Amino acid sequence: MPTTTSALSVPSAGAPFEAVEIERRDLRDDDVRIDVAFAGICHSDIHTVRDEWGPAHYPIVTGHEIAGTVSAVGSAVTRHKVGDRVGVGCLVDSCAECENCKNGQEMFCSKGSVGTYNAKNYDGEWAAGGYSQQIVVTERMVVRIPEGIELDEAAPLLCAGITTYSPLKRWGAGTGRKVAVVGVGGLGHMGVKIAKAMGAEVSTLSRSSAKAKDAEELGSSNHIATSDKDAMKAARGSFDLILNTVSADLDMDTYLRLLRPNGALVNVGLPPSSLSVQPGSLIMGNKVLTGSNIGGIAETQEMLDFCAEHGIGATIETIDASDTTTVDAAYDRVVDGDVRYRVVIDTSTINASA
Amino acid sequence: MPTTTSALSVPSAGAPFEAVEIERRDLRDDDVRIDVAFAGICHSDIHTVRDEWGPAHYPIVTGHEIAGTVSAVGSAVTRHKVGDRVGVGCLVDSCAECENCKNGQEMFCSKGSVGTYNAKNYDGEWAAGGYSQQIVVTERMVVRIPEGIELDEAAPLLCAGITTYSPLKRWGAGTGRKVAVVGVGGLGHMGVKIAKAMGAEVSTLSRSSAKAKDAEELGSSNHIATSDKDAMKAARGSFDLILNTVSADLDMDTYLRLLRPNGALVNVGLPPSSLSVQPGSLIMGNKVLTGSNIGGIAETQEMLDFCAEHGIGATIETIDASDTTTVDAAYDRVVDGDVRYRVVIDTSTINASA
Repeated sequence: MPTTTSALSVPSAGAPFEAVEIERRDLRDDDVRIDVAFAGICHSDIHTVRDEWGPAHYPIVTGHEIAGTVSAVGSAVTRHKVGDRVGVGCLVDSCAECENCKNGQEMFCSKGSVGTYNAKNYDGEWAAGGYSQQIVVTERMVVRIPEGIELDEAAPLLCAGITTYSPLKRWGAGTGRKVAVVGVGGLGHMGVKIAKAMGAEVSTLSRSSAKAKDAEELGSSNHIATSDKDAMKAARGSFDLILNTVSADLDMDTYLRLLRPNGALVNVGLPPSSLSVQPGSLIMGNKVLTGSNIGGIAETQEMLDFCAEHGIGATIETIDASDTTTVDAAYDRVVDGDVRYRVVIDTSTINASA
Repeated sequence: MPTTTSALSVPSAGAPFEAVEIERRDLRDDDVRIDVAFAGICHSDIHTVRDEWGPAHYPIVTGHEIAGTVSAVGSAVTRHKVGDRVGVGCLVDSCAECENCKNGQEMFCSKGSVGTYNAKNYDGEWAAGGYSQQIVVTERMVVRIPEGIELDEAAPLLCAGITTYSPLKRWGAGTGRKVAVVGVGGLGHMGVKIAKAMGAEVSTLSRSSAKAKDAEELGSSNHIATSDKDAMKAARGSFDLILNTVSADLDMDTYLRLLRPNGALVNVGLPPSSLSVQPGSLIMGNKVLTGSNIGGIAETQEMLDFCAEHGIGATIETIDASDTTTVDAAYDRVVDGDVRYRVVIDTSTINASA
């Protein structure tokens, strides 16, 4: 029998949130039911709800930074048990059989992975995300949240954490390496914390020096205002790795010039326009322009273990959703960049009977 | 005392070659004098002579694919001795003290490396390249040509060989990996041979299927005509590494689509226009767009040793330069792509007294 649970839903593009009852499927043999405690607000949620990333399917329940506790398990579940602290990120299913799934990159599943919302499950049902008091997910896509990270500070790790951890690891952030993080927001603040914990010397870049002090508190040893031409010139050839978390159109050549030979510029945001790059910006210095898309399930677990080991959680503001306009307002604040650094919804406050 | 030697020189942009006597400096303590036997014709020579890459310094003696025999050594030379078979590539000096030099990437020398021609030596004298019967080079920039490679087939390795070997090695061409080489010319044919010898399964791509049979003989197991839309579609997601040796403007998104997740597209040519890339082409699949610029001295030696071990030389046409118009005509043929695959000048035929 399916169960019902309270959730925050948007009925149509541009409409405000409503607290509603939604159904969660009855447990399959390999399913885990999670009592959601907290759900982070990611900018992707906003793009989707506002229909800015192609047609969304309404009504929609967003949220792919989910932390909670297992409340029931299917008969064949072996990885998790009732009471376990667990998380779910951007994916709720993948084929598990293709080369990419087997390589631990479920996000590139050849069959097409299933997103946590605005996506159809393989059975044809639309997935509903984490702004909800309960979610049912196949155990393979559920990760363990280690002791040592509070659930509220863990929730944003499921997207912002893995999205920054994965490229920082692939491109060798570590002791003796100089890493720059562009943008000090939801993704960027995690990038700074994780790169620092990996042992890198971290710099931050944003338009002005307004966030310089905050960046320092996060672990940046040097903040550069990109509007300061002299500072940008002085920084040329100084970084091994630049993690660009900004989704606006930036001049790639300018940032490639900041790299040392063999350095990499990794974009994790999706700016609206095509990137333009002078061929010489890559050839003179064997430089790398690349992108990175979340991370697989095993790597997400590895990231959570790493964060627990290093005492890292997201820096958050927790909001009460009993008045749904608080969530609408939080969306506007995220768009305005007026959040330090992630808003997390206390899902226990969602009240569908209000 | 400086020595004089016969060389092919171009007096001004667009002028034909002349056979002239030029001076080579007297041996410094660390210098090696090389009796040049063969010099390859690289497309870069042509761009430079024709003033297509910014102002060139005339008169100019091009040639940076140089193979010959040591005929004299300075008093402090330890790496080479008279009679050794040696080569010189695109660089004749670097500071040897900066981080990049110490890391074996002399081409990125912080002081500025000295090109083999159209560049000033640190003493202020203009360098003159390998279309000459003799050249004097500091021993550090001279590499050993192993037994097992003829000097004529070795000459093009000093640029075309290292320019393809370096990125193929960095990006992991090897057993079990699928490598595509775009363009089957001077660089491309070396890319095919080297990738194949590294153990990769090699495909080739060019505009038509005209070179399909030749590509197969070089080691390609699959030739794709890029004008064949169905074949290009079928090849999507199939390569780990694409080495683009074409200097024309190609659609980067099209080639990025041919990569597997985590794959890399490496440009070694310098197309005239900026590259345009959709952000999603990189993020969906964590794909890499990069460039690669020749290689350092130690890696050039490694490449020559690798080629000797695997019986690889360039596939060449050797020309006689006693009539200098033969060289002018060869330049036109290179521009027309009418060469299989590298033209090498027999420098013994240069006759300045004719």
